[in-house]
Amino acid sequence: MHDVAHFNNAGCSLPPKTVTDTVKGYIDFEERFGGYEAREAFEPQISAVYSSLAQLIGASADEIALADSATRAWDMVFYGLALAPGDRIITCMSEYGGNAIAYLHRAKQTGGEIVVVENDPDGQIDLRRLEEELGKPRTRLMTMNHIPTQGGLVNPAERIGELCREAGVLFLLDACQSVGQLDLSVARLHCDVLTGTGRKYLRGPRGTGFAYVRSEAMALFEPAFLDGRSATWLSPGEYELASTAIRYETWEKNYANLLGLGAAADYALGLGMSAIEASVLRRGTELRDALREVPGVTIADQGARHCGIVSFTLTGVSPDRIMSSLRQRRINVSVSRARSSRWDLPRRGLESVVRASAHYFNSSDEVAALVSELTTLGDEAKEDTEEP
Amino acid sequence: MHDVAHFNNAGCSLPPKTVTDTVKGYIDFEERFGGYEAREAFEPQISAVYSSLAQLIGASADEIALADSATRAWDMVFYGLALAPGDRIITCMSEYGGNAIAYLHRAKQTGGEIVVVENDPDGQIDLRRLEEELGKPRTRLMTMNHIPTQGGLVNPAERIGELCREAGVLFLLDACQSVGQLDLSVARLHCDVLTGTGRKYLRGPRGTGFAYVRSEAMALFEPAFLDGRSATWLSPGEYELASTAIRYETWEKNYANLLGLGAAADYALGLGMSAIEASVLRRGTELRDALREVPGVTIADQGARHCGIVSFTLTGVSPDRIMSSLRQRRINVSVSRARSSRWDLPRRGLESVVRASAHYFNSSDEVAALVSELTTLGDEAKEDTEEP
Repeated sequence: MHDVAHFNNAGCSLPPKTVTDTVKGYIDFEERFGGYEAREAFEPQISAVYSSLAQLIGASADEIALADSATRAWDMVFYGLALAPGDRIITCMSEYGGNAIAYLHRAKQTGGEIVVVENDPDGQIDLRRLEEELGKPRTRLMTMNHIPTQGGLVNPAERIGELCREAGVLFLLDACQSVGQLDLSVARLHCDVLTGTGRKYLRGPRGTGFAYVRSEAMALFEPAFLDGRSATWLSPGEYELASTAIRYETWEKNYANLLGLGAAADYALGLGMSAIEASVLRRGTELRDALREVPGVTIADQGARHCGIVSFTLTGVSPDRIMSSLRQRRINVSVSRARSSRWDLPRRGLESVVRASAHYFNSSDEVAALVSELTTLGDEAKEDTEEP
Repeated sequence: MHDVAHFNNAGCSLPPKTVTDTVKGYIDFEERFGGYEAREAFEPQISAVYSSLAQLIGASADEIALADSATRAWDMVFYGLALAPGDRIITCMSEYGGNAIAYLHRAKQTGGEIVVVENDPDGQIDLRRLEEELGKPRTRLMTMNHIPTQGGLVNPAERIGELCREAGVLFLLDACQSVGQLDLSVARLHCDVLTGTGRKYLRGPRGTGFAYVRSEAMALFEPAFLDGRSATWLSPGEYELASTAIRYETWEKNYANLLGLGAAADYALGLGMSAIEASVLRRGTELRDALREVPGVTIADQGARHCGIVSFTLTGVSPDRIMSSLRQRRINVSVSRARSSRWDLPRRGLESVVRASAHYFNSSDEVAALVSELTTLGDEAKEDTEEP
């Protein structure tokens, strides 16, 4: 039983006890014996974290780099791709704001071009247009989210990966919202890079993330920064990159969190990602269907395939007011804003939407409580409007 | 009373109880109420961390950026300095390996030149040669450590800062080993950038670091990466950098650690950095003097001014064997290696040295225990040699 009805799993989920215990246990050990000494004592457990994450997405442990966030893991790879003026980077309308700002930044730095592929009638990336763009000269990279921050859409990443592989274009998949939610396989996704976070559906600690970089693609993405972890200083004027994906890491880390991330991955693997996916999608459908029945609610999810995230608006009540009213009732949801999705929400006439994201541990009672509170909020708004 | 005699404070110190309690308390709150919800509830405490760090080094809170390590904080600023072929970066022989690799990396990327200034007879950077180098055209940056990783040397950073200011050259000071050990003032240091870590002398959590960037210097160091924290997405093709040093941050963070870092800074401010500095230097001198008396020990510290770190060798016993033998006796020291200091240790004919780093909490009994164990190790080595 949780203290809150937590529908903010797309923001940061609630960790299972094993994650918190792992983190706190390691902190206690460090406090007694020292941070470097603890790291040495836990070497096998630390090494196992790479294997666990690799297993989670069907990769090899040597293809995993750890970071303090998915963004930093993503940056270390994305910013390392050498771009020349006129080189093209392809992305989609639903792309996450943080990534989009980095594209604009790199385009300004290098003279590269950002191509945002239009949606199809379902409201997801148009695969025919994508195929066309991938075929054009100087196309260096396809980079996009698997599930956007602002809604329940699941992008057709497997098919996109196939198209990229056929066109010989590198594919970077931001799987922030799908790691721990969907049963992922980098082989099936045909991606060269995949980045994920610990804190969302994987139920790990905040400040944890990782990148998968396909062995064959490592030479194409130079690490954006180098230090004594990512490279070895051989002689006064020479260094050598690490041979595995740790070339994208930095030396210093918080090992308590890293072990917490491993515990979260092991917990998910124990339940089975296929079972988790089925359960989350079922909860998502239950939540979406229930919300659809609330008078005044409009579901805002795009695309053909949906996940545990449900985005919506309620007539007469702002998303911010909904979030704060629900918070007082110990129901957690979040708000997705135009400033994180400038290529998407504004075109749909939306400044913001409520995002309720269900996990397998959310109960039907919690869904009912959310529906009931929203119904009350909607009724109050209606009464306010009807007052003379 | 600690479980270990911890002379590895230059690696990672032991935190005071308030740091561990702060971190664990926040983790418990997150577990109950959610990571984003906890962040909102602790907004004032989080904001206070910037002020505490600013106070620690005499800066303004708007000039502080947080990161998951000093290296990452340093990278975000250093890699953002635009360099053209022929631009010169000045550093010193004692420079840290992680930084040196980044210099070589950037030089290769940009065609810039790295100038390593020779030492004076004391074994620290020669200020007359530095002045000469600073005066040469195309000199863009002076960048070096305050206290190196491999010894007790305190570089004359205040004077170096003055020379840089006079020459109109930017000054980036890596204060990893001096934050929490010495009473620092960015005004006195005349630095444009200063980076520090939480885990060393400041006694904060692992995986924490920060950068100070002088307001007037921010325009010269573009953040190396951008996301939704460091910039705001204004319109489909436009973004705007944050107006303060948070332009060097990323959105996602581990707030438990961040608050632990703040608790460590507050703890140090409570004791007073001037009192801490005096106490650490006293302990360093006590340790250095005691080690000098051990038969076979050679102190390896360079320079005119020393700190709490003492580097040494012992005839007939390798630094690695010393570290592991002491570890079994619950005495923690570390080993500094040539691979982290290619411009320094090898020139002195050293492959590695033992590093014993004293903090104010180390007792005279602990120093005596270390001396006693080293004496025994030295005697054993001597007997081994004398055997027929």
